[in-house]
Amino acid sequence: MTLVMAVALPKLQENTHPLDRLHDLLSDDMNAVNSMILARMNSPVTLIPQLAGYLVAAGGKRIRPLLTLASAKLCGADMARAHRLATAVEFIHSATLLHDDVVDESHERRGQKSANVVFGNTASVLVGDFLFSRAFQLMVEDGSLTTLKILSDASAIIAEGEVLQLSTQNNLKTTMDDYLKVIEGKTASLFSAACEVGPVIAGSPASYQDALRAYGLSLGMAFQIVDDVLDYNAEREKLGKTVGDDFREGKITAPILMALEKATSSELDFWKRTLQDKEQSDQDLRQAQDFLRQHGAYDRGLALAKNYGMRALESLNILPSGALTSSLADLVTFTLNRSH
Amino acid sequence: MTLVMAVALPKLQENTHPLDRLHDLLSDDMNAVNSMILARMNSPVTLIPQLAGYLVAAGGKRIRPLLTLASAKLCGADMARAHRLATAVEFIHSATLLHDDVVDESHERRGQKSANVVFGNTASVLVGDFLFSRAFQLMVEDGSLTTLKILSDASAIIAEGEVLQLSTQNNLKTTMDDYLKVIEGKTASLFSAACEVGPVIAGSPASYQDALRAYGLSLGMAFQIVDDVLDYNAEREKLGKTVGDDFREGKITAPILMALEKATSSELDFWKRTLQDKEQSDQDLRQAQDFLRQHGAYDRGLALAKNYGMRALESLNILPSGALTSSLADLVTFTLNRSH
Repeated sequence: MTLVMAVALPKLQENTHPLDRLHDLLSDDMNAVNSMILARMNSPVTLIPQLAGYLVAAGGKRIRPLLTLASAKLCGADMARAHRLATAVEFIHSATLLHDDVVDESHERRGQKSANVVFGNTASVLVGDFLFSRAFQLMVEDGSLTTLKILSDASAIIAEGEVLQLSTQNNLKTTMDDYLKVIEGKTASLFSAACEVGPVIAGSPASYQDALRAYGLSLGMAFQIVDDVLDYNAEREKLGKTVGDDFREGKITAPILMALEKATSSELDFWKRTLQDKEQSDQDLRQAQDFLRQHGAYDRGLALAKNYGMRALESLNILPSGALTSSLADLVTFTLNRSH
Repeated sequence: MTLVMAVALPKLQENTHPLDRLHDLLSDDMNAVNSMILARMNSPVTLIPQLAGYLVAAGGKRIRPLLTLASAKLCGADMARAHRLATAVEFIHSATLLHDDVVDESHERRGQKSANVVFGNTASVLVGDFLFSRAFQLMVEDGSLTTLKILSDASAIIAEGEVLQLSTQNNLKTTMDDYLKVIEGKTASLFSAACEVGPVIAGSPASYQDALRAYGLSLGMAFQIVDDVLDYNAEREKLGKTVGDDFREGKITAPILMALEKATSSELDFWKRTLQDKEQSDQDLRQAQDFLRQHGAYDRGLALAKNYGMRALESLNILPSGALTSSLADLVTFTLNRSH
């Protein structure tokens, strides 16, 4: 618990949910992006809008395009350009979701059957490729080689992160450093790129670009670590969310690494059997949760997330104060405080 | 047979294999591209070069990067730029091969186990994504928004073609128009883009760009139609190649469409059972080949390919004559004459 106490987070500056507040502050822009998402996922090949529309209709928080819009508006960018890039960012994210669900053999996403279950793995792979290509077409239309570089670099890093995750799965030799590289790749790099393109198209000074890139990166790290901790949180079950997906897939995440670090030899046998050898029975998730609790893995995981959260907040310091900047700050606090 | 007789193809201008001749004419450039392929598929995530290297080591004709190099050299382009774009083109192609093998549940590629069998579907999907991203990074390094547009458009069209193919698979209502759209997407669009980027980076007149784009498109159409006809050619078996993959997968290709057009009602029952309802026994491929032969589907398929081949040759007319242009012409003749 010490680490948790060591970092004092600011209180939320408004009582409304910071994502709702960002949606309010950017409602016209977000409407434009939603329209563009629908328009640009279209294709004469009807299976493409059907499948992509299924994913889009399932909702999602649209956090990445919101980050692009907020960082762009904050820097005074031409918002028509920001709409295009926010759409590109969301398409890259959608493509990775479609491919992830195939890779993880997922059955559910956002509380409904995942696209691979409804349309098949094949269609999910190919429509993911389409959305990814479409994202690059949007960036080319925007015409900035700098944003193309930022987002193509992020795309390569996402894929590297996903492949590294594959190598660390079911592998108890995974280090904290490996884990941090995985989540930086699969999550933080796109958060970072989504934030960085705003100041780029605004022609802002390099310090703004550095600040928003760093903010997005740290926010993304915090977001994913909290996600990985919550995947073991039994409280989620009360809300109808699944718990233990990472455990069943043998993903080596922050809470597991923290429990492994302090594991007795019989606990180590348990983790070997369940995560490495993939031999799991119905009671094992409960047992895993107990071990995590005993070793303070939840609190230590959240403390790690808070360290990143503090860095994200610090990055915002040089930006002009205002409703958008304070919403971005609240988003950090909210990310760290969410319990499901 | 009439159509075949109607179009007279020029004889090969040299006796050596035109791909070998292109490799000879462009050997320094091709060596540079091969080195760049190896260098740029590298990653600290070792599974990436392992899997990508496995695909690359399996060989392949490298026809697409050769087209980029030939068109670039022909137009007097800076060949260092051409190397980068040829590598990008090969990476886009490699990414689609990796995804195709997952989609088709292939077991073999180029006479060895396909990457999805050796490394798993998951890794193939993700390494495909990496190569695709890397292709865009290479294009961004080159820095031409025009080539980025050409290749991102081609990538979207490839994905559309692949999804359309999925919709036409096992579907006897597929029309010749649908089929032509599928192969234009999945094959001809990248041939076309590979040729078009050469004159673009050379700053050639628009007429050269139009000519090489049209050449690549028609060559790609001819190439794929011949491929689809040869998939039913029993002669290939003598060379140890597999025959009947398309039949087993229920792909509706040119020879099938030509046999369907003339099918009796009992033949139609046969095609419905084997291709639509996917009920096949060991003797069915032989029967399918007999029906194709009876209805002249081989010759009519090849005649269709020859029409495209003639268009490809016509497109070359405005280009300066020389060894490269005549090799590109020979490539058309070779494509149409290959029997395996």
